Amino acid sequence: MDSKRIAAEHAVTYIEDGMVVGLGTGSTAYWAIQKIGERIKGGLKVRAVATSRQSERLAVENGIPLVGFDEINGIDLTIDGADEVDQDLNLIKGGGGALLREKIVAASSRKVIIIADESKLVGQLGAFPLPVEIAVFGSPLTLQHLGRFGRPLKLRAADGQPFITDNGNYIIDCQLNAIPHPLKLHDEINAIPGVVVNGLFVQMADLVIIGRHDGTINELIRTKPGTAQS
Amino acid sequence: MDSKRIAAEHAVTYIEDGMVVGLGTGSTAYWAIQKIGERIKGGLKVRAVATSRQSERLAVENGIPLVGFDEINGIDLTIDGADEVDQDLNLIKGGGGALLREKIVAASSRKVIIIADESKLVGQLGAFPLPVEIAVFGSPLTLQHLGRFGRPLKLRAADGQPFITDNGNYIIDCQLNAIPHPLKLHDEINAIPGVVVNGLFVQMADLVIIGRHDGTINELIRTKPGTAQS
Repeated sequence: MDSKRIAAEHAVTYIEDGMVVGLGTGSTAYWAIQKIGERIKGGLKVRAVATSRQSERLAVENGIPLVGFDEINGIDLTIDGADEVDQDLNLIKGGGGALLREKIVAASSRKVIIIADESKLVGQLGAFPLPVEIAVFGSPLTLQHLGRFGRPLKLRAADGQPFITDNGNYIIDCQLNAIPHPLKLHDEINAIPGVVVNGLFVQMADLVIIGRHDGTINELIRTKPGTAQS
Repeated sequence: MDSKRIAAEHAVTYIEDGMVVGLGTGSTAYWAIQKIGERIKGGLKVRAVATSRQSERLAVENGIPLVGFDEINGIDLTIDGADEVDQDLNLIKGGGGALLREKIVAASSRKVIIIADESKLVGQLGAFPLPVEIAVFGSPLTLQHLGRFGRPLKLRAADGQPFITDNGNYIIDCQLNAIPHPLKLHDEINAIPGVVVNGLFVQMADLVIIGRHDGTINELIRTKPGTAQS
């Protein structure tokens, strides 16, 4: 079985009756949404919120009832993917462009489970370019500030035009290569006024489930800020 | 003469030939833009960037040449107003709704001069509701996080509809009453993922010019982070 799918299906075993579930976005979250649909057909009662239009559509197709953010008091459990994961459960997310929505949902979730195949697990974050969502206004100024942290910076494009997020902003992919201090970098980038959100998710994941090609899984659990045990 | 105008016209004496000038927004910045126009008629050579469409229009009306952000390497001097100013030169801005653009411009300015009448100078920030610009997506979740800092929180409205900023976001006006630690609050509010920008401008103003009803002015100068002398 596909290693993404193995991780996703294991994550879904953590869902209990009555929960409000956050649905992630991307190729790994896809398998989680499929599995949640299966469990609902088997009698599971949950309500869900989605982090993208794509996941919203998938939820509807799989018979998962969606609720508005004004109808809930927080989210019990969110299952989402990541582009890179380190041993401290810090993440880079945003390769798919939904980072703001994913971060808003994760920040209101009592438990966040990240699912990934083993290729995403790294010793240190930074090989994957860090996505930073910035306001269109004054973007040349914001790029000058971002340039302090590393280069090249690449304005994300789609069909030859700047890619515009669901929130009307640009995404800058920053090739940093090495991120030795994720929390410090997160705070420094966030302090730039034109930055709306950055793809570093620090101390947000409670559990990371890694699916391996040999069919096994590996769980990384966050025990306290900045540490993890496997 | 109007005390706002006194402060504004004094600020304009700091502008020198060849500068790139940031034009603020609001009723005090209005007077600065008028005065810059006058000096340009007298031979002053500057180029300007504006923090709102309103200021852009005023600049054009007053013969002030505007440049794009991709044509400049930073801003030499920005003159802008504020809703509240404390003795450490910390500010609350955003009553007019242009806070993101104002903060982006201020953050790229080598010198920021804030102009205000004496009613804006306070012992402690917080009587003026703090504007916080947030993403529309997940706004009920973001409001729950903001509620930790004080209440009531008010979704800014215009013509019976939620007010939408130039950047497509909501503004929440937070009645905090007292802000004893502006930098700490700034960082904590900024750390909420749905928050795009907040109206606390900490360690950004280099000089505050207060216009008084008796026709005098008072200058507060920032000497090092967090301290000021008058």
